[in-house]
Amino acid sequence: MFTTLKQIKQARANLAGVIIPTLLQSSSTFSKLTGNEIYLKPENLQKTGSFKIRGAYNKIANLTKEEQKRGVVAFSAGNHGAGTAFAAQKLGIKATVVMPENPVASKKNAIIQYGAKAIEYGTSSITMYEKALELHQEEGLSMIHPFDDLHIIAGQGTIGLEIFEDLPEIDAVIVPVSGGGLISGVATALKEIKPTIQVIGVNTEGATAMYTSLQYGHPVEVEKVNTIADGLMAKKPGELTFAHTQRYVDDLVLVKEKEIADCVSLLAERAKLVVEPSGAAAMAAMINGHINLKNKKVAVMVSGGNISFELFQNLISEYNERNYKNSEVVK
Amino acid sequence: MFTTLKQIKQARANLAGVIIPTLLQSSSTFSKLTGNEIYLKPENLQKTGSFKIRGAYNKIANLTKEEQKRGVVAFSAGNHGAGTAFAAQKLGIKATVVMPENPVASKKNAIIQYGAKAIEYGTSSITMYEKALELHQEEGLSMIHPFDDLHIIAGQGTIGLEIFEDLPEIDAVIVPVSGGGLISGVATALKEIKPTIQVIGVNTEGATAMYTSLQYGHPVEVEKVNTIADGLMAKKPGELTFAHTQRYVDDLVLVKEKEIADCVSLLAERAKLVVEPSGAAAMAAMINGHINLKNKKVAVMVSGGNISFELFQNLISEYNERNYKNSEVVK
Repeated sequence: MFTTLKQIKQARANLAGVIIPTLLQSSSTFSKLTGNEIYLKPENLQKTGSFKIRGAYNKIANLTKEEQKRGVVAFSAGNHGAGTAFAAQKLGIKATVVMPENPVASKKNAIIQYGAKAIEYGTSSITMYEKALELHQEEGLSMIHPFDDLHIIAGQGTIGLEIFEDLPEIDAVIVPVSGGGLISGVATALKEIKPTIQVIGVNTEGATAMYTSLQYGHPVEVEKVNTIADGLMAKKPGELTFAHTQRYVDDLVLVKEKEIADCVSLLAERAKLVVEPSGAAAMAAMINGHINLKNKKVAVMVSGGNISFELFQNLISEYNERNYKNSEVVK
Repeated sequence: MFTTLKQIKQARANLAGVIIPTLLQSSSTFSKLTGNEIYLKPENLQKTGSFKIRGAYNKIANLTKEEQKRGVVAFSAGNHGAGTAFAAQKLGIKATVVMPENPVASKKNAIIQYGAKAIEYGTSSITMYEKALELHQEEGLSMIHPFDDLHIIAGQGTIGLEIFEDLPEIDAVIVPVSGGGLISGVATALKEIKPTIQVIGVNTEGATAMYTSLQYGHPVEVEKVNTIADGLMAKKPGELTFAHTQRYVDDLVLVKEKEIADCVSLLAERAKLVVEPSGAAAMAAMINGHINLKNKKVAVMVSGGNISFELFQNLISEYNERNYKNSEVVK
């Protein structure tokens, strides 16, 4: 089963007036660094601070009236939870988000602020999933999966439509990959419109579920994930997202953890954007030579901006230590 | 002499394809904080990291072929220098920028990177101005004034056109004020289109040239400026910009230095934007109750993002110390 271009266009109609159609932002700094024409797709500026609102809203909008009345449940430590809560609030629907125990206070607050109920349960995505499943079975709440769902994929695919309409002569799009919802949607949209556009995914070395699965030829679960990019921690891609990625994605490369950490600061300094590590992964791959493109028009997905401000401070501090110590004359 | 709406529209035609027409960015966080519908105008995402490119480019584009051939000179420690250098490079014109002695390395590098010649001379804007005047007189370089020029004012005014077209039902626009070029252009554009739109300026308590001048009824030079907002350090408004401000601006309020410093971090955390102190002044005035608006649609100018990364680190560090110490449970 695959999402179609028609479904992605329907998703866009659903999302009109709800999301911000973020505009590509050209960057001379990153263009020079990579020898390409680089355009950022700044989904950190999206409502709720990440692209996740797109899929979540489209999924909930596609539920029946009866399902909507019973409410929805999601499991997430971060952006998908906020996206689901915000989407449900916009649609006037009751939402529950299962979070890990002792969640980051700001993330829990965001979910509550969007009017959802936050439940802390377990520490792994598997235990959270089981709790969500229980609520689904016992209370009839509709499960809003973070990625493995055709309506979720179609919602994320609206980003592909926007990129193409913004810059039809685009040559390639670089996308960070976790469970695979984002790249599945974006690749489907772009390849169905213009198959010569290259779509390249990025896994971090600390979390290689999709990369490993592509090598095995089917979805496999990796034993461990250990990454600074807390939005890229899926241990196994979905069945649907794996199939979309296998069919539509040209290549999937790995980026180093250290490169992601550096790129957060570089994006703040040069692009004036606050980006979370997951959102910096695609650009990190691009500027560190992991993607073989020259003199192309390349859109790089900046997927989200919800970074803990303590981590942000630490990354900037390390960056300054390395780059500016004794190098600036202070008046 | 006043800039006209027609001249501002001509400026926009000149700037087409050169600048980014930044889109208003709605913010639920800042809307809740102020009891209004808040829209950020993110000129920190503009080419060169500030709005200054608009006026500088429009001015240079309006020089005669003969003047363009001789080249241009500007005096600036920061954004106007970068704007002039970038504009001149785009138009294929030789530019010289007079900077203070021992400038911040990154700012000097930006100017050189845009192909301009950087001259270090003196430490005050008066000595820099004298040096620029000398180059004007001896080498025939055209002076690109940072604010007191009708073409500069018209260039900055294109921001007013964009805001109105983006959101015609806008009620008020909040603008940081230094020499007065930005607010003169924006106020002229908006008041000539729709006089009921309120235009409100913001001075910081550490640099009150326009505020004081409005009280005296003519441009006066303040004795001292001492502000974290290094883009708002003009000691005296221009003759032209004072006249425009007096005619078109509804009110001008003061914001505290501490409020600006805090707002830099708040804009990073909540709006995901890296903003320099000057660019945070208008929002700081808005969220700290210095502007008497409720339930209005308000555009707040975020004028630039060129903050020293050491200062950025320090501001975020102070902010975290205050807001997050012991408040987050870390897993």
